[in-house]
Amino acid sequence: MTAAKRTAKATRESLHRIFTIPEAPNSTLGRVEQQISHNLMGFLGDHIVATEKPLTDIEKDFAQAKIPETPSFVSDHMHHLLDKLVSQSVHTSSPSFIGHMTSALPYFILPLSKLMVGLNQNLVKVETSKAFTPLERQVLGMMHNLVYQHHDDFYQQWMHSAQHSLGAFCSGGTIANLTALWVARNNLLKAEGAFKGVAVEGLFNALKHYGYDGLAVLVSKRGHYSLKKSADVLGIGQDNVIAIDTDECNKIDCQKLHNKCAELTTKNIKILSIVGVAGTTETGNVDPLNHMAEIAQQFQCHFHVDAAWGGATLFSNRYRSLLSGIEKADSVTIDAHKQMYVPMGAGVVLFKDPASVNAIEHHAEYILRKGAKDLGSHTLEGSRSGMAMLVYSSLHIISRPGYEMLINESIEKAQYFAQLIQQHENFELITAPELCLLTYRYVPQAVLQYLAKADQATQQKINLLLDKLTKFIQKRQRENGKSFVSRTRIEVGRYGGEKVSVFRVVLANPLTQKNILSEILAEQQALAKQAPQLLAKLAAMTAST
Amino acid sequence: MTAAKRTAKATRESLHRIFTIPEAPNSTLGRVEQQISHNLMGFLGDHIVATEKPLTDIEKDFAQAKIPETPSFVSDHMHHLLDKLVSQSVHTSSPSFIGHMTSALPYFILPLSKLMVGLNQNLVKVETSKAFTPLERQVLGMMHNLVYQHHDDFYQQWMHSAQHSLGAFCSGGTIANLTALWVARNNLLKAEGAFKGVAVEGLFNALKHYGYDGLAVLVSKRGHYSLKKSADVLGIGQDNVIAIDTDECNKIDCQKLHNKCAELTTKNIKILSIVGVAGTTETGNVDPLNHMAEIAQQFQCHFHVDAAWGGATLFSNRYRSLLSGIEKADSVTIDAHKQMYVPMGAGVVLFKDPASVNAIEHHAEYILRKGAKDLGSHTLEGSRSGMAMLVYSSLHIISRPGYEMLINESIEKAQYFAQLIQQHENFELITAPELCLLTYRYVPQAVLQYLAKADQATQQKINLLLDKLTKFIQKRQRENGKSFVSRTRIEVGRYGGEKVSVFRVVLANPLTQKNILSEILAEQQALAKQAPQLLAKLAAMTAST
Repeated sequence: MTAAKRTAKATRESLHRIFTIPEAPNSTLGRVEQQISHNLMGFLGDHIVATEKPLTDIEKDFAQAKIPETPSFVSDHMHHLLDKLVSQSVHTSSPSFIGHMTSALPYFILPLSKLMVGLNQNLVKVETSKAFTPLERQVLGMMHNLVYQHHDDFYQQWMHSAQHSLGAFCSGGTIANLTALWVARNNLLKAEGAFKGVAVEGLFNALKHYGYDGLAVLVSKRGHYSLKKSADVLGIGQDNVIAIDTDECNKIDCQKLHNKCAELTTKNIKILSIVGVAGTTETGNVDPLNHMAEIAQQFQCHFHVDAAWGGATLFSNRYRSLLSGIEKADSVTIDAHKQMYVPMGAGVVLFKDPASVNAIEHHAEYILRKGAKDLGSHTLEGSRSGMAMLVYSSLHIISRPGYEMLINESIEKAQYFAQLIQQHENFELITAPELCLLTYRYVPQAVLQYLAKADQATQQKINLLLDKLTKFIQKRQRENGKSFVSRTRIEVGRYGGEKVSVFRVVLANPLTQKNILSEILAEQQALAKQAPQLLAKLAAMTAST
Repeated sequence: MTAAKRTAKATRESLHRIFTIPEAPNSTLGRVEQQISHNLMGFLGDHIVATEKPLTDIEKDFAQAKIPETPSFVSDHMHHLLDKLVSQSVHTSSPSFIGHMTSALPYFILPLSKLMVGLNQNLVKVETSKAFTPLERQVLGMMHNLVYQHHDDFYQQWMHSAQHSLGAFCSGGTIANLTALWVARNNLLKAEGAFKGVAVEGLFNALKHYGYDGLAVLVSKRGHYSLKKSADVLGIGQDNVIAIDTDECNKIDCQKLHNKCAELTTKNIKILSIVGVAGTTETGNVDPLNHMAEIAQQFQCHFHVDAAWGGATLFSNRYRSLLSGIEKADSVTIDAHKQMYVPMGAGVVLFKDPASVNAIEHHAEYILRKGAKDLGSHTLEGSRSGMAMLVYSSLHIISRPGYEMLINESIEKAQYFAQLIQQHENFELITAPELCLLTYRYVPQAVLQYLAKADQATQQKINLLLDKLTKFIQKRQRENGKSFVSRTRIEVGRYGGEKVSVFRVVLANPLTQKNILSEILAEQQALAKQAPQLLAKLAAMTAST
């Protein structure tokens, strides 16, 4: 045997091994897995380095574009991952990481995810997913039920019908919103006479056929950026996503919405969809959905509700009414990976009318044959994992009352934090929580009192300094790694509608205790002192009058 | 304490437990997990019921649209999942499941997936992914390198640049193809003078501005159905995906492609993109990419290569040349969850020019601020998981020579199976393997000899019967659960270009041994005997002349 043949033989054997021989329990990977299984928080706490390393430094560890010519041993590679990747990842499930919508997961999710990967089903077709197809259809039925609350016979009739679909699973809220607007567009510009429909002939012919000068999507200025992205993709154009002003509570101004609809109609711009937001990304507010549904009805357009974040509130009998009117929506987006505590990658779009999806139906010879129950004939994506199983299990293990309790506690925790902020002399609550989101900023008491009486030009000058302070505190806090809040810019009515920088907090992690909230304020107050120049400038401005 | 309060307290405690107390190793879920870890194939073999149950029966177990009002114990729920779901799922990693592109995974993937879920990073932005962002950029660099093979300084310059991106991770090939055509469309119809570009103003204004009567995408008739879906979504219209005939080897006819381009140009239809296929879904063939690149150059259009399936062939020094010309593509789709053996959900689109993605760039206040390195500013999707880690680890642990060996063995196994079919008197090879896909059918020897001399009308009659036989065998084989091949319909030149039904086989599972292939033919031959009426009819037709 030549040396080359010996190497080839060794490679072949080692390849066969990775496909057939499990990781030994006492191997590095085996030990990592056990730590994750037995004490995830401990593992993350031990391995994630708290203090921040500059991204440009981290990049040096990921600079090699060459594909290795030599295989790594699994154990060596695991050490490398722990050292370079895990150590510099973000502890998203930490109770004091309250800046974004990614939080802790229940323990049973970990082994279930492994089962999902081990089964490696492909939900695009029955032939590669079998029972996962009816399971996903059931989960869509349950989510549909959560929103629309139809009688059981409705679900018996439609849930498993090959020609229908109560919704679609997808990777996330962006694809869900895109799918909803795609369905709306194709139903609006459907085949008629010799015109074969927008799906077949394209948007140029469709607008010519229907004689419209353009399409528009109307949403409050707090709408998620995925709507503009969807309008871009769908050929509608970002400029035709029309941002309507909001009131003091970040809810769409329905009078302005109505006026804009009327104005567009006279301009021969057809309104494709009005989009209500149920849980704005930045402030967590819910639009007046009933009123919006009426306007959509009046202008005969699709009504979509983006409840990617807030949809799970429907589990709560106590707070469900906050989303009243959502059941009038033609389509609804909900992300299970947000307030339903499943891992990233579980977006859902639901359709009131089970036949809506016919507008996007497609077939192929080797799969998705007509009449088959393959889920792939009504989804934007093709191959997809069995993520629906995790939602199914969570719905059963947590159950509706369990979700209600999680939702109620989050909302009430946000209300508690808002009180804490308002009672604190050096903080200003910017947006009060309706769901479990709020925004606020650090403002020394004297400055706050001064601001209240200042004219708009002075307010603006002070707010510029405060913006710098907010940015400084937020960045420093993140770098210190003890806790994390995010940051955004929001128009504030009492400051002439000018945008100011604020801390943004999402209180969805069930493990976040009240004492953590006090500690975060204390930390921010201490960090502010590390910007003495900014504080001095603010003091000078306040003293100067 | 009232009863209601006691119930609430119990629910709260049980909820707290699922977020904080790991599954005990001796619990049902704990035991399932250990079985998966120690012997995945054994677990799947033990739990997946081989013989098929009708889908309508399975649906009865997934008929309940009501969300449970009572929580299930994790153990009870696991029994339920094993009993109703896992038992009726598809054993995609079985060595005799050779009908689709989903196959076995290396063992290290299982614990790594669990680590990925435990870390629950969100790759949309640095704040929720930190080191995962440079890691994903590196993986994109490595995949770009696999295709384009630029010098190291190219990657040092662009890989981590905030304003650039060498590609995008996404959930799968459909989103990858859609992203590529979206980029192509937005670059073609970009801002010019007063026109703000298709992204901003939409397709109607864009075509008016540029004075085109339409757009077209040209691809062989073997192109994947996701291209029509993408054209629908992008507002181009399915009819404007123009299917070009293929030659005997299922490769696009470049003369016809050229003629069609010329014809469309004279009709004032602008060619948006020519799409080459590197590994057709049904037959695994590769288009003449060099020639197609020339034509794209001549007509000044985007050249995309859909290598979702075949892209991994580039790892093989022996077979890389089959894809020669792919390095001239403006964009390339590769699915890592196909021949790179990572789980579902790892699509990649690559761009030759790192600035291409500027055409789809978007920003928001709270994330994706300008100048930030957030991956989300250049992706169609928003929130995404850390799937790139699994590709990264596979590239390191398997390495290029390991992938080469897997690819070579798959291709050579397909060549072996083709020989086996050709040597067998009762089988007809329909499409010979170029990569590891082939199609064939069962045809009794006498019928095959007769077919060869028959006129086209007779051929057609016989082929109709053979189609029924193929369908019968494939269905029965699937139902028996011992092995699985898929089925499609393909035009065959020697039968006047008429479509016939064929078995479709994908030989990508490293665990599929040669003896399994012989067994599959033996099983199919035996199954044919279970359709005596069809065989008798065929015999009668053959005897009648």
